[in-house]
Amino acid sequence: MSYCLILLAHGSPDPNWQAPFQRLADALAARLRTPLRLAYMELCEPSLETTVAELAARGTTRAEILPLFFAAGRHLRKDVPGQVAALAAAHPGIDLTLLPPVGEHPAFVEALAAVIAEQAGETPRE
Amino acid sequence: MSYCLILLAHGSPDPNWQAPFQRLADALAARLRTPLRLAYMELCEPSLETTVAELAARGTTRAEILPLFFAAGRHLRKDVPGQVAALAAAHPGIDLTLLPPVGEHPAFVEALAAVIAEQAGETPRE
Repeated sequence: MSYCLILLAHGSPDPNWQAPFQRLADALAARLRTPLRLAYMELCEPSLETTVAELAARGTTRAEILPLFFAAGRHLRKDVPGQVAALAAAHPGIDLTLLPPVGEHPAFVEALAAVIAEQAGETPRE
Repeated sequence: MSYCLILLAHGSPDPNWQAPFQRLADALAARLRTPLRLAYMELCEPSLETTVAELAARGTTRAEILPLFFAAGRHLRKDVPGQVAALAAAHPGIDLTLLPPVGEHPAFVEALAAVIAEQAGETPRE
């Protein structure tokens, strides 16, 4: 069984907007053994559709999709689940799981608190 | 001189969307001594305008605005600087600084990498 973690960003035609996501993906690729891909929900490539099709063609059998969103609004409650359901139907050989957005992970809140504390010139209270 | 850190989120009329930002602000308020406020760029209250007006009325003399965005697109390159310039003109007693989005901070990338590593069942490579 081969696995891939897909980091899903919103997407924008602005290359300046895309750059931090690419830096994040590069930083992660250097740190993790887990295979990962960066994909965009809309407006730029690689799209989620392109990415899942490539993974399916390479024989990936399981992929988790981690939305790089602070919170779940309409996109993550409706649009992305619809995309994932369509992709699951189109590529039955790959098991797709949509994870909650990274912003809803307690560890993310803790990490962000630490970053903001540093920004504010403080160390967090224990 | 009194200072406040304003966490600026995009904003949405969806209360489900707002909840993670409120959790983050609550978690930070419990951890930091720095006074902080959560404000929204658009679509819900408290807006940035409401927040800065309140701070100015309370005698806050300096506020930094930290966008809770992964990346700077049109909003952070055009809309928000325009809002901040208008607020600075309207409230000359408060010195406003717009910080780069949290997603562009190297420490954020590191923290997010650690969260994703945990998600992926890995500890980051050193």
